[in-house]
Amino acid sequence: MPLIRDPSYARVESSDIDYFRGLLGDTGVITDSTALQALNQDWMGKYEGKSTVALRPKSTEQVSKILAHCNARRLAVVPQGGNTGLVGGSVPLFDEIVLTTTNLNRIISFDEVSGTLVCESGCILEELDRHVGGHGFTMPLDLGAKGSCQIGGNVSTNAGGLRLLRYGSLHGTVLGLEAVLADGTIVDTLQTLRKDNTGYDLKQLFIGAEGTLGVVTAVSILCPPRPSAVHVSYLAVPDFATIQKVFVRARQKLGEILSAFEFLDQQSLELTLEHLEGVRNPLPDTQTPFYLVVETSGSNEAHDYEKMEGFLEEVMEEGWVLDGTIAQDSTQTAAIWGLREGISVALKHAGAVYKYDLSMPVPEMYSLVEETRQRLAGLPVEVVGYGHLGDGNLHLNISTKHYDENILKHIEPFVYEWTAARRGSVSAEHGLGQMKADCIGYTKSQEAVKLMGQIKRVFDPNGILNPYKVLPQDGASRGDHHANAMAA
Amino acid sequence: MPLIRDPSYARVESSDIDYFRGLLGDTGVITDSTALQALNQDWMGKYEGKSTVALRPKSTEQVSKILAHCNARRLAVVPQGGNTGLVGGSVPLFDEIVLTTTNLNRIISFDEVSGTLVCESGCILEELDRHVGGHGFTMPLDLGAKGSCQIGGNVSTNAGGLRLLRYGSLHGTVLGLEAVLADGTIVDTLQTLRKDNTGYDLKQLFIGAEGTLGVVTAVSILCPPRPSAVHVSYLAVPDFATIQKVFVRARQKLGEILSAFEFLDQQSLELTLEHLEGVRNPLPDTQTPFYLVVETSGSNEAHDYEKMEGFLEEVMEEGWVLDGTIAQDSTQTAAIWGLREGISVALKHAGAVYKYDLSMPVPEMYSLVEETRQRLAGLPVEVVGYGHLGDGNLHLNISTKHYDENILKHIEPFVYEWTAARRGSVSAEHGLGQMKADCIGYTKSQEAVKLMGQIKRVFDPNGILNPYKVLPQDGASRGDHHANAMAA
Repeated sequence: MPLIRDPSYARVESSDIDYFRGLLGDTGVITDSTALQALNQDWMGKYEGKSTVALRPKSTEQVSKILAHCNARRLAVVPQGGNTGLVGGSVPLFDEIVLTTTNLNRIISFDEVSGTLVCESGCILEELDRHVGGHGFTMPLDLGAKGSCQIGGNVSTNAGGLRLLRYGSLHGTVLGLEAVLADGTIVDTLQTLRKDNTGYDLKQLFIGAEGTLGVVTAVSILCPPRPSAVHVSYLAVPDFATIQKVFVRARQKLGEILSAFEFLDQQSLELTLEHLEGVRNPLPDTQTPFYLVVETSGSNEAHDYEKMEGFLEEVMEEGWVLDGTIAQDSTQTAAIWGLREGISVALKHAGAVYKYDLSMPVPEMYSLVEETRQRLAGLPVEVVGYGHLGDGNLHLNISTKHYDENILKHIEPFVYEWTAARRGSVSAEHGLGQMKADCIGYTKSQEAVKLMGQIKRVFDPNGILNPYKVLPQDGASRGDHHANAMAA
Repeated sequence: MPLIRDPSYARVESSDIDYFRGLLGDTGVITDSTALQALNQDWMGKYEGKSTVALRPKSTEQVSKILAHCNARRLAVVPQGGNTGLVGGSVPLFDEIVLTTTNLNRIISFDEVSGTLVCESGCILEELDRHVGGHGFTMPLDLGAKGSCQIGGNVSTNAGGLRLLRYGSLHGTVLGLEAVLADGTIVDTLQTLRKDNTGYDLKQLFIGAEGTLGVVTAVSILCPPRPSAVHVSYLAVPDFATIQKVFVRARQKLGEILSAFEFLDQQSLELTLEHLEGVRNPLPDTQTPFYLVVETSGSNEAHDYEKMEGFLEEVMEEGWVLDGTIAQDSTQTAAIWGLREGISVALKHAGAVYKYDLSMPVPEMYSLVEETRQRLAGLPVEVVGYGHLGDGNLHLNISTKHYDENILKHIEPFVYEWTAARRGSVSAEHGLGQMKADCIGYTKSQEAVKLMGQIKRVFDPNGILNPYKVLPQDGASRGDHHANAMAA
């Protein structure tokens, strides 16, 4: 994407640095090039900016003053949480100032009756889960990056993850937010109420806006009771059509305790076993095109195990599942999840990877993997498919030794067009970031994109917040014709 | 509220009627005064407008043409669904045109694998529940008005209801919307995807906007599997502090199958037994200040009954529950729910009623009922409290023979100020409508209300959609000082 720096943004001057030092102290202003490198680059090493200064505020008021200054000076700003994103949303493209929420890391309150957590946006997801776990609750989301991702980043990217099937999306579980607009205005909707119908639900706009409408500084989130019984099974299934039968049966038999329904293909399994140390094959004697990870989370050990066993018996009797195992202890549970969660890391070890995060009707999901495989036949790539089947969310990954424009041309726009034709989403959970800033038209109509642009101008009239991301620069985006075809 | 008709709106002329007749046919344009009366008035008989024309479009395209015409002509429009609201949101104040969605009543699709329903906005909630019930699913919301309320109205008011505790709010379960903006633009976000992170989640703005941002014409909504086992218990509890202990224990013991946790006070019970025929007292030999309705919905009859029984044994052994009964069949279940759902209707039979729908931290909830009772001592009123305790949602109702300004002065702004001081919401689920159009400041900050006004101007620059509702007319609202105090 040969983007050009927008010349309407000012460049950082020494007087700006002086202002920031006065506000944040020396430790709050990072100008050292080594320290900056980690903030300029995403964890995959795919996106890299050239920022010369990063800021580490400790309070919402400091965020407010930083943004008010940047807005007046027309300095572009990239909000950054744990920097674990997959679409280059949290790193600069050019010299945007990096505003990291790492030091906004206080837990403000936890209510043991309702399960409501209020905390600052820089808190690490895993640490929050540990905290609420001590009170008998759990965070309503879980993802591979939990050890380093921040709740503010989770909210800003509307992170989905492994247990969305059970606890729903952040649009339902986030009860309130505090965010700072581009001009420094602090918008406080940090309610802890489950129900509040007073006016428009503004917080929803910040959920998934990837920092383009404001910087999320604090979050109020509803935590469900921590399940006292968790069971995980790993199943071998012969084909994708059968997976859907197993899914329908799982919803019937496991009902309210079903907490994850994940799939991986044979190629994902082999690649992970090859490239990730310490991972083992839960069913070493069975080879089949597909595997499932089915998890239950509930409140009654005996009831839940009985349900899982009954489910497994049924799907094996039906001949849908060729082989299966239920983890018998936490080590076995961790091993199964380690395999599923390890795919993404294994892919990184294997070399370069083209990652696509798509949602679409479940029946059509795997056809895209197969068609992509056919399209790339003869090229030095491995095409793998895995994901959150219960949510209709496919992770299509094309693994290769090194990034190669020629390979990319075979993948894009094919993958996006294929998805748009089925009215799917070209970003199920990763967001658009810089990777797909011009792809929104594949999923959203022109009318919707126009409204988004108008909302952006209300919240950030000078466009200083996370520029070049999410929305297309010129107002038109690559998928527009698809949106039109769809509307016709 | 002595509001004055905004003179910037045009008045309906015969040429407008001609245009509408040409577009909708004679049956789509209602000008008969008898037929209009039902549309001009809310079901409580509390709010009444003077509209001279109501329109009954049959398609989104007709809605689009109606609004484009009204926008060009500066004719104000009130969208109306089942007209079952409680805050006068769906009836005109003056001569606004009523646009009813009653004839937008097609079910478009239902996907049996994912449980996704797509339908037009005029579909009746109970009929939708019957439809998806035939496929083994249930609607994710349920409320007393289900026999006449429409899904478009549910979405536009972000209806909560009886099972929010279990299935979460519409912000989580609505997957997509189609809405028509004031200028006739059709915004189609009618996705059926559980996950879609492409840009701002525009549909969220229409959820709870009470028709002020657009007319919702179709909805895509995620339905959970229909529970095969439902158990309801009715418990007598001596005081409000104990109710909270029972609630915490219910969450622990009933976990994922807990689907409702409702409370009513002795006064609610007596008033309902007196004024509603066919209702019976489930525990006629026990008199205590509070009663609970606790419901479980799950997938395994034996497991669920065992959990409910175990829970009841525990809370009775603890001495928290003085007496209790588990419904043994569907008749007994219906009787308990009939009592709980009948309170609102019984209050209407009893005369005039001042209704407040508030959310706040659970521990403080009932103090407001007691303080209101003290405040009104000596006046000819009955103060009752009931509601969705599991959601922190109190319905405070003051019943009297006839509406009386003097009584109102004792209630308002006291109730709103009391709620604001505890950072509660002055409208938990009913919305603001015309009743509380100037009350938003009790719950939302000035910065938030300002943003809402800016969003309103983007979506509806001429302000033709549902005027005089939701947001304060002059930009300032009654509760502003509270919001300021809170921010300080």
